[in-house]
Amino acid sequence: MNSPAYADLTTALRRNHLLGTMGDLLGWDEQVNLPPGGAGQRAAQMALLAELGHAAASDPRIGGWLHELEAGRATLTADEQVVVRQARRDFDRVTRLPAEFVREKATLVSEAYHAWAQARATSDFPGYAPFLEKHLELAKREAAFLGRADAPYDYFIDQHDPGLTAEVIGRLFAELKKELVPLGRAILASPVKPRTDALRGFPVEGQRAFLREVTERLGFDYQRGRIDVALHPFCSGTGADTRMTTRFNVDEPLDSLFSSVHETGHGLYEQGLPAAEAGTALGMHAGMAVHESQSRLWENQVARGRDFWRCFEPRFRALFPVQTAAVSSDELYLAINAVAPTLIRVDADEVTYNLHIILRFELEKKLFAGELAVRDLPEAWRAASRELIGLEPANDREGVLQDVHWSGGAFGYFPSYCLGNMMAAQLWYAALAALPGLEEDFARGDFSRLLGWLRTHVHAEGRRYDLLALVRKVTGEELSPGPLLRYLRERYGTLYRA
Amino acid sequence: MNSPAYADLTTALRRNHLLGTMGDLLGWDEQVNLPPGGAGQRAAQMALLAELGHAAASDPRIGGWLHELEAGRATLTADEQVVVRQARRDFDRVTRLPAEFVREKATLVSEAYHAWAQARATSDFPGYAPFLEKHLELAKREAAFLGRADAPYDYFIDQHDPGLTAEVIGRLFAELKKELVPLGRAILASPVKPRTDALRGFPVEGQRAFLREVTERLGFDYQRGRIDVALHPFCSGTGADTRMTTRFNVDEPLDSLFSSVHETGHGLYEQGLPAAEAGTALGMHAGMAVHESQSRLWENQVARGRDFWRCFEPRFRALFPVQTAAVSSDELYLAINAVAPTLIRVDADEVTYNLHIILRFELEKKLFAGELAVRDLPEAWRAASRELIGLEPANDREGVLQDVHWSGGAFGYFPSYCLGNMMAAQLWYAALAALPGLEEDFARGDFSRLLGWLRTHVHAEGRRYDLLALVRKVTGEELSPGPLLRYLRERYGTLYRA
Repeated sequence: MNSPAYADLTTALRRNHLLGTMGDLLGWDEQVNLPPGGAGQRAAQMALLAELGHAAASDPRIGGWLHELEAGRATLTADEQVVVRQARRDFDRVTRLPAEFVREKATLVSEAYHAWAQARATSDFPGYAPFLEKHLELAKREAAFLGRADAPYDYFIDQHDPGLTAEVIGRLFAELKKELVPLGRAILASPVKPRTDALRGFPVEGQRAFLREVTERLGFDYQRGRIDVALHPFCSGTGADTRMTTRFNVDEPLDSLFSSVHETGHGLYEQGLPAAEAGTALGMHAGMAVHESQSRLWENQVARGRDFWRCFEPRFRALFPVQTAAVSSDELYLAINAVAPTLIRVDADEVTYNLHIILRFELEKKLFAGELAVRDLPEAWRAASRELIGLEPANDREGVLQDVHWSGGAFGYFPSYCLGNMMAAQLWYAALAALPGLEEDFARGDFSRLLGWLRTHVHAEGRRYDLLALVRKVTGEELSPGPLLRYLRERYGTLYRA
Repeated sequence: MNSPAYADLTTALRRNHLLGTMGDLLGWDEQVNLPPGGAGQRAAQMALLAELGHAAASDPRIGGWLHELEAGRATLTADEQVVVRQARRDFDRVTRLPAEFVREKATLVSEAYHAWAQARATSDFPGYAPFLEKHLELAKREAAFLGRADAPYDYFIDQHDPGLTAEVIGRLFAELKKELVPLGRAILASPVKPRTDALRGFPVEGQRAFLREVTERLGFDYQRGRIDVALHPFCSGTGADTRMTTRFNVDEPLDSLFSSVHETGHGLYEQGLPAAEAGTALGMHAGMAVHESQSRLWENQVARGRDFWRCFEPRFRALFPVQTAAVSSDELYLAINAVAPTLIRVDADEVTYNLHIILRFELEKKLFAGELAVRDLPEAWRAASRELIGLEPANDREGVLQDVHWSGGAFGYFPSYCLGNMMAAQLWYAALAALPGLEEDFARGDFSRLLGWLRTHVHAEGRRYDLLALVRKVTGEELSPGPLLRYLRERYGTLYRA
């Protein structure tokens, strides 16, 4: 189809996207550069951008073009249908929520954040509970505005990963849990103990140099991106200008390295999306879980693997000869793949991390189903923690109050982390099958075949496929926890003789 | 007056200002951080911001509020009148230029820039001349749109320094020239020769540390600003978030230091403007020349002075003991105040710099008056250079093609540099008279009395007064070249026994 409405629509979408990229930059700058005295002005700038963005995204002309294009749907190409479908999702979300509701939620987000921070500091869940209850109520109203009063939790899951439902996730997680809990216990009981505390005193300059070499080898294009220091690692921006952050701790060299490789995975995905389509669904990532599959694949399957270290260990030792002198090659590899249960999700290792996610998903699901009251959440958390992780928090600060997400009304967000791990493992075995000798490439420091394969099969597709369809298309199989369990057993079962 | 129109107007002005601050940040980031591959997206972002800014600034409601407020002018407070007057200036400028004209000029700016860069590289003035002729033609049309067809050059001067005219500048410059040319010649003939090439091999880290100490002592508030490295030094942003840049050259430690102190002067002014009034004339600088007076005062009168170095020389030597070992205190001070004629304005010293400006002003004035044709500009430049600076360019690259300004249609801009120098000297003597023992403060590293005095008498006034009125108010005298000549004679005449 060669429709003026389609051209008008995509022009408007690109313009709105460009507005969004300014917000990205201001947000990045706030974390990386902003002097403290500039915070008030930055908040005002962000509020103005949000206002401009809302006005642009709810422009009634977009509704008119969508109406016209949907009426002539049969004449649209498949790609055009992808673009129109996503534009409809976004337009509905921005126009169906009354301004009064949006204000109410924004106010609650702000109040709940402060209540959460306060409650966390004093481990006082009851002080925070009313805000969480209010968030749940607003969440249900929000879903109703979008025609999903029947399944509010599904509505939120779908916001992050289009097409996914709590039922599908529940089935996948139940299957994963069955084998993962015993595997975690077995690793814990293993006599093999990593010496993580042996790596101390790594000067920042050396860490920075090593990180730069690694990320360049992986394929991050520094002509279209950069990495800076911030309090928390993140990746923002677009493929044209990808801004990653990291943080350095002289006594935690692996923490900085792997969190940066994780962000590099996100960055490689953004840099691989079709630049010419930026602003439409064809130039957009396929959802949170797919994004996370990219970061996890590079972080875990690739950079924590034996062959990666065959290439980089000599360089690491050359940069830090004194600091690594007392650590054998096997000890280093074990420290890289340390597994130790923890109460805190963000500190968790690759094996038990998934259990933290399952815990949150199960509680969220019950909250939305009315099977769990907010006031009973701390006790439910403790019970789930015992069952899944084998540890019980001594207080709510280490339990139900540890994450910021719910205070922002971000429900249905946690599952993506674990789904991303599943997809990463599934992609990994598909890549190994499609690219014979791939790990030998890594040992030589060559990651180009893997990146090329991901570029073609995942990045270039933009948002043409949702998570389930994309996995099916790339691997020929349904999304399942099988490959993740296989991978965890192969790496960690072997390493820990568990 | 407590008018709803006034409240509406200032709300709109603040919002438009906030849009402008985003452009500042994007522009700063482009110079400091942007990866090369992000240039296209940044250009698109800037174009979109320009479009949004134009729409906001030309909002017909602003015209309505202005109309209402001007009709009831007698009921406005003096401050409100200041705000309304500036808003009228800005509104007229943005609404009276037809969109077609704005596009035509933007296209010419882009084409003329490339033609200039090309002509400069090959020293080929004739290839650039048609673009400059076109710029002059557009400049006259622009002035006509704003009702100044009678005096187009004055229109442009007024854009930079409200209220000023070519006649006033011509009178001031003629007076300055009369004494400055002989002073420059006398310094040149002096047997005292600075050893600028003795300062070599200053590591960047030490320069950075020294610069930070100096700028903090001068009073720059790093809680509301920062300094980074860029290709060219500049200062952008607002008082809430002032972004300065510098550049380091291991063999030019004074270049970085003084260009940064210059930018610090601009930054101190921005940080001293009334924050609560940001976006209105009461929170806005008083014009280019006043801004330049602040940068020059801190750079020249303060930081090139004896007492400043009484404080900082020991620290400078401690940071760079080897590099300064062979340079005596007097030799260092002479290098700091080196005078040497050059064909290139941006390389000029504090004495001859003013002559470069007078040269440009005289030629601009003749161009606008029709007394000089563009094709005769190179020859006129050479003659003026011989007369004023005592040097004749061997080619147009070192002559008429050296500056970028005219290629952007920026006429009437150069005079501000020299007017700023005049005002700086005039403020200097006023401060010395008002603050007994001021230079002894400097020797102790205390600059707070000078900054406080400038805050009160210049910064806090925002745009209440134009250049001439502000000088009159602060010093009790008319703007004149006398104090600048006195200062140059006192410092350089003594130093060079000229």
